[in-house]
This record gives sequence, C-alpha cells and structure tokens, in this order.
Amino acid sequence: MNNLISMRDLSKQEIERFLDIAAKIESGELRPDISRKLAALLFFEPSTRTLFSFETAVKKIGGETFSMIGTSSSSVKKGESLHDTLKTISMYADLIVMRTTIEGAARYASEVVDIPIVNAGDGANQHPTQSLLDLYSMVKTQGTLNNLTLGLVGDLRYGRTVHSLVQALKDFNPKFYFASPAHLRMPSSIIHDLKEKNIQFEEIEEIDSIINELDIMYVTRIQRERFPSLEEYEKVKDSYVIDVNMLDNVKDNFKILHPLPRVNEITKAVDKTPYAYYFEQAKNGVYMRQAILSILLKAI
Amino acid sequence: MNNLISMRDLSKQEIERFLDIAAKIESGELRPDISRKLAALLFFEPSTRTLFSFETAVKKIGGETFSMIGTSSSSVKKGESLHDTLKTISMYADLIVMRTTIEGAARYASEVVDIPIVNAGDGANQHPTQSLLDLYSMVKTQGTLNNLTLGLVGDLRYGRTVHSLVQALKDFNPKFYFASPAHLRMPSSIIHDLKEKNIQFEEIEEIDSIINELDIMYVTRIQRERFPSLEEYEKVKDSYVIDVNMLDNVKDNFKILHPLPRVNEITKAVDKTPYAYYFEQAKNGVYMRQAILSILLKAI
Amino acid sequence: MNNLISMRDLSKQEIERFLDIAAKIESGELRPDISRKLAALLFFEPSTRTLFSFETAVKKIGGETFSMIGTSSSSVKKGESLHDTLKTISMYADLIVMRTTIEGAARYASEVVDIPIVNAGDGANQHPTQSLLDLYSMVKTQGTLNNLTLGLVGDLRYGRTVHSLVQALKDFNPKFYFASPAHLRMPSSIIHDLKEKNIQFEEIEEIDSIINELDIMYVTRIQRERFPSLEEYEKVKDSYVIDVNMLDNVKDNFKILHPLPRVNEITKAVDKTPYAYYFEQAKNGVYMRQAILSILLKAI
Repeated sequence: MNNLISMRDLSKQEIERFLDIAAKIESGELRPDISRKLAALLFFEPSTRTLFSFETAVKKIGGETFSMIGTSSSSVKKGESLHDTLKTISMYADLIVMRTTIEGAARYASEVVDIPIVNAGDGANQHPTQSLLDLYSMVKTQGTLNNLTLGLVGDLRYGRTVHSLVQALKDFNPKFYFASPAHLRMPSSIIHDLKEKNIQFEEIEEIDSIINELDIMYVTRIQRERFPSLEEYEKVKDSYVIDVNMLDNVKDNFKILHPLPRVNEITKAVDKTPYAYYFEQAKNGVYMRQAILSILLKAI
Repeated sequence: MNNLISMRDLSKQEIERFLDIAAKIESGELRPDISRKLAALLFFEPSTRTLFSFETAVKKIGGETFSMIGTSSSSVKKGESLHDTLKTISMYADLIVMRTTIEGAARYASEVVDIPIVNAGDGANQHPTQSLLDLYSMVKTQGTLNNLTLGLVGDLRYGRTVHSLVQALKDFNPKFYFASPAHLRMPSSIIHDLKEKNIQFEEIEEIDSIINELDIMYVTRIQRERFPSLEEYEKVKDSYVIDVNMLDNVKDNFKILHPLPRVNEITKAVDKTPYAYYFEQAKNGVYMRQAILSILLKAI
Repeated sequence: MNNLISMRDLSKQEIERFLDIAAKIESGELRPDISRKLAALLFFEPSTRTLFSFETAVKKIGGETFSMIGTSSSSVKKGESLHDTLKTISMYADLIVMRTTIEGAARYASEVVDIPIVNAGDGANQHPTQSLLDLYSMVKTQGTLNNLTLGLVGDLRYGRTVHSLVQALKDFNPKFYFASPAHLRMPSSIIHDLKEKNIQFEEIEEIDSIINELDIMYVTRIQRERFPSLEEYEKVKDSYVIDVNMLDNVKDNFKILHPLPRVNEITKAVDKTPYAYYFEQAKNGVYMRQAILSILLKAI
C-alpha cells in the first residue's frame, strides 16, 4: 500500500490491518519510529481539528511536520501550478497529507509524486482517515464490526463522513437507519449501491422509534447553509438534536459518535452519560493516524 | 501541582521550587526529557514573544508543539464552543498553554480538561509564567528574593505583569515604589491588600528621587490607547523614560527589568550599561518555562 | 565562519567546503546532529518554498524551528524595533534564518545578535543559500564547477538569483551567455565587474543560436509586473519559453536549472527529458542547507 486515497481502494483485509495496527499502537505493543521523517501537511482547505490530529500522530511517533494552510501561500500566489507545488514538496517531505475542497485532488497528487499521499478530505468525496477512526471506535466499543445496527443522523446528503462510512462497512453485514430532513437524504447513488449489494437499510424521519435498536448512532452537523431558507432550517433542526431523555432504554453497548465539531446536535448533558463517545473517538483518531503513517512509511 | 493558573495559588515553597528547578535546568544539573509529549499552544490572543518562548522551552527539553493562533480557527468558525475545543485538544495534547483576553479562561479550562493547563496570560488578570521568570531574574541578580527594594514604573493600572509581581513578592518582605501617571496608578484593590499585609510601599510621580535606593526597577510600557486624549499622553510619556543620565549613582546590584516589547520607555543607550537586564530576563523565561513544563508533566 | 550573509564574503575554498559537506551529507558519510537546537525562521517576506526547504533541512538533522511569517507579528505591531525583535529572538534560538525585502537587513542582524545569521534573501540583493544549492546542482551534474558554459535566461535585471550566481562563479573560469528582453538585461555594475575580471560573457536576445554550446541553462521567471505595459510583456514573453523542440541537439551533459516557482518559462513536456533538473535542484537545496546549518552550528 502506497497511498490512502479512498475507502473504495481498501479490501476488508486491509481495513482489518489498519484496525489491528492502531490497536497495537494504542496498547504499546507496537512502537513505530519515524524519526527524521517529514510529513507535509497541505491543508488547502483549513481544518484545525484534522490538522492537529495529524500533527499529534506524526510527532507522537517521532516524526516532524511542515504545514501549508489555505491557498494564500506565496508560491500559489506567484502562479505556480498544483503539479509543481506537489512535485517540489515531494522533494522535501517523505509523505504528504492533503486536504482540499476539490474532489479527486488527492488521487491526482498520487499520480504526480513518488511519495505516499494521505487524503485528509477532498471536498464532498472521501475522508478515509476519518472513516478508519470511526471503524476503530466501533470495534473498540462493540468488539466487532460485524452485524452492527447503525443509525446515521443529520445531514446525509453532503456529509462525506457518512458516505465513506457506509462504503467502509459494506463487507461487514451492517443494518442502517438513515435519519435526516427530507432534502438532506442519503444520495441516490449510495441508496442504489446498497440495494445492489443487498445491504439492509431504512430511511426514516424520526429517531425515537429506532434508537433502542441501535449499537451505534452516528450524528452529524446540520448546517444552516444547506437550507434554502432560514425558516426551513428552523423547522427541522430540533428534530435531530440528541438529548438525555431519548436515552432511557438504549442498549448497554450503545454509543454515540460524532466527527466533531458539534454545534448543538447533541446536548452537553449527554456528554456525562456512558453513551457519549465522541471525544474518545477524537483520541482514537490519533492512534489510527499513527497506524496509517507507520504503514505508508513502512515503519512497522 | 496539576496546573499553573495564578500566582495566588502558589505558596512561598512552591515558588521557591520553581526557582530552584529553573536554576538546575540552566546549570545543566537537571536535564528533563519530555520526548514524544505534545504541548498545545492555544494563543487566542496573539503574543509572538510568549509563543516563541514556550516553543523554545518545549523543544529544548525534547517535546513537541502544535499551535492555534487567534480565534479564526476553522472549528471556532463552525460554531464550536470553547468547552468542546478544549476537550478535543485534550484528546491530542499532553498539556495546554493558553493565552486569552478573557479573565478566568485558564481556570475554566482547568475544570474542563484532565491534562495540565498553563496560563500564559488571561486578559488583565494573571500571567504567572511571566511572574516566575521575573522572580527568577531577581534571584539571579540579587542572590535572594528577600528584603528587596523595587521600583515599579509605567502603567501600573492595566499591567497584569506588575499586579502578579506584587502578589508574588508578598511573602518576601519587599519595599515597593510605584511610579506612574496619575490615572494609571496601582488599582485600589492591590493597595488595600498591601496595607492589610503590612507591606511597605509608596506611590510617587518622579523616579529620580528614589532610583538610587532601588535593587530592581521594573519598567512597563505606557500605551497611548490607555489615555483619554493624545495631549494627556504627550504630557506624561517622557516622565517615565529611563535614560543613562539617571543611572549615575544607582546601587552596584541595581538591575532594570522590562517584560518587553519595549517601545521607548528605556533608551537604547541604557542597553550597554551593566544595569540593563531585560534581554537576559527574556532568556531566563526559557529556563523558567522549561521548569514549569517539567514539573507539570512530572518529567523531573 | 559565523554567518552566511553574502556570496561576496566567501572564498573559493569556503564555497568548495560547503559543496563537499553537502555531498557527504547526501551520501550519508556525514550525519550531523543538531538535536535540541532551535532555528528561528524569520520570514518578514513570505516564501513558502524557501521556508519549507529550511524547515526540512533543520528537522532532517534533528533540530527544531519556530517561525515568524510576515510583519504582522504582535511585537512588531506593538511598535518594537527590529533591533529588539532580533535581540530577543537571539535569547531563544541558536541560529536565525532571515528573509526580508530590505537590502542589508541580514548584515545588520549579524551585527545585533551573537548567534549565527543565515540570509535567506534580502530584497534584490543576495540569496546565498540559493546560490550554493545552484552550485551544488552544477557540480553534481557536471562533475566540476570549472570552465562551464552557462546560459542565463529571463529576468536578469531584478533576479537576485542570477546576480549571486555570476558572483559565485567568478573564480571558476565560466563562460556566460545572458539572454533577456532588452530592458531586463544584466545590471551594468555586474557587466562592469565581469569585464574587470576578464570573465567571458555575451549578451544575446535569442537562445536558439547558443543552446547547443551550453552545459547549464539557468532559467528565471519573467514577471509581468516588471514591464511598463502589458503589450510590451506580451511581445517578449514567448521568446524565453523553453520547449522540447529546442533541445534536439544539446550536449549530453546539458541541464536546465530554475529556482522555481515556474510559471510557463519551461513547458511541462520538458520535465520528462533528461535535461530537466529543476526539481532535483530543489532537493539539492535541502542537503546544501543541512550543510550550511551544520557548519554554522559547528555540528560537524
């Protein structure tokens, strides 16, 4: 494996290898060392959280970083092409972590340079390191990825996180509930794909009726900007707010995940329940990204 | 000790421990190692100098950093609460250094997260790492903190540095002269506190009359913005400019401190005298911050 | 050697030492270690590429950095003088890499502080680390610096890179062709200097006639801003675009260098020829900067 561009590229076995290595790094059984290796963090689209998670992951295993944030870099301003920027960076760094708003940019990068590329989000397309940390959070809390019942809640139309997740779980016999406002439903291409693969799913509008069935509830932010008018936003936004009163009869193994940042999709009172797992999920991201970096840099 | 929030939290013994550890790090007797530890430098209020001092301190003892400067980070923009930002950062980092314009923010942070918090300035309130490096500079140049005669000069009303310093020295039998323009005098709460503790102090308008008595003169910047009008600023600003002609009869052990940046409170000619100590003071800050980091991370 | 300010300060022997150390670092024969050393990267004029090259160089040999980009730092805003900024930084860092728009700023810095200064470009004046990496690229591809025939192409008037290069090669018996639009010709001071030193050179307008004689062609960007009008720019810009059809009969050892970023001075088709060397040149910069840092920090 030379790059991590899309969950679509990964076999079930490869996913399991990532999960296994992350667990061994977390437990201390594996202690990868990437001393004197440089990761270039090219965040053409800013994302503080993802940036910090990668910085931490690199440095916790002894590596170093340099960062380009936004598109205001002096070379870009001077009219340099993305090709040349990437090619030059690849002369300095040992690996590139890249986040853009442009679908396919990470794939393109992997064709331009000879060093590994990690896709840290390319527009509405893929965010595979997030997917892998989500899977790691599931396996840690459920003991397995197989046969889980999952509720995906919020903006299912634009949320690349949930798209990747559905993709990633396809070989693990999941059962999905998709809960969203009408015009933020899962894209038809994904629905079509699920049908073709005979994966169980149901599109719903209310969470209450199914929450007690769930192993995992994955909540995403509903952004005002996605709505045609403020009224339409106001109408639905509260239907997808998770509060403690909804958690009375959930399963013991039930966990709430969220890619963060949260705005008000989950009330703060939920944080104190044993079902809240979103901050631990963020921590799991550091171990998973250490695993990804170690594998791609052949440090384990 | 789990956090460093305010000088008010520190006993005389704790202050002496910081001074002792800083001295041992400077001499090379102690060589703390915080390899693979990450310090998050959250500077909601930018401060290049303090940021660089902390970056240096962390890296000189083998640690690593990641930094958030200003409030324009993408998570803050997306509407994330300070609570969630801090909580998430605490999943990545081993310690948080935090600078804000909001009094009490560092204390709040220490209640939210489980990792150590270092207050690097919270508004007009506290800046304890500055106070400790100031004390370290005093003990290095005077041999003791006890029984010193100190002149505090400039903006005594808004300068958190001088407030913390007065606080910090209360158990060491100091004698203070406070020299400032009339409407930038030491706040009445501090005056009241000094009276109650029977600490000697005098409020003056001229420095000349007392400079030859001093062991330490601590100079701060008088900011134009603090004055109701430009005329009032122009009237007083030159009264508090330190020049070589004032230093003819000072004590041999006399030293001038300044938290920097200096604008024109001290003329450049003073730099060449043996009394100028403000740049060494900045260097002392690196040793003191190494001591603070090492103690809070239990690396010594 | 305590600083690297200008190629004019370097003897032929000193240049050869830099080239030798860079080669030994690249081959692995020398492995300098600057652990726990801090390089302050002060880029008052932003330059992503040069910044990343230095960051990589520092970290590849175990050192650390902190960076100030632009002139918007809080200390500068507070009215601090360049003198005080440099003096304070020198209390934290072990070496300063400095890029400014102001000619002579690096020399001034070396007079203010006691730690080594590396000039990473001071306006139109000098960029000695670029010159040294250019020389290293020449010696790697030609086996020697002596008796080379070089074509310098593009903006020869404002390009500090080509000025430094002409300066740097003066003791190696070069033969120069200078190809540029009429009003972007090599400055008369340099022409005068070459005549005085009896160095062979010719000013030309067409590259085609001489390209087959060349060992090295050094191409620079022609910036629109340098032209009095858009028409004048449009008239000449294509005369200095290097394309594959010009390379049919070049010498086997012929190499094209470019300090990058490239806009359209060299077509992308050239990248695939064996004559393209500009990206390797960027990589050579990391080895050369490791050599410079190691020598100045006395780490070898």
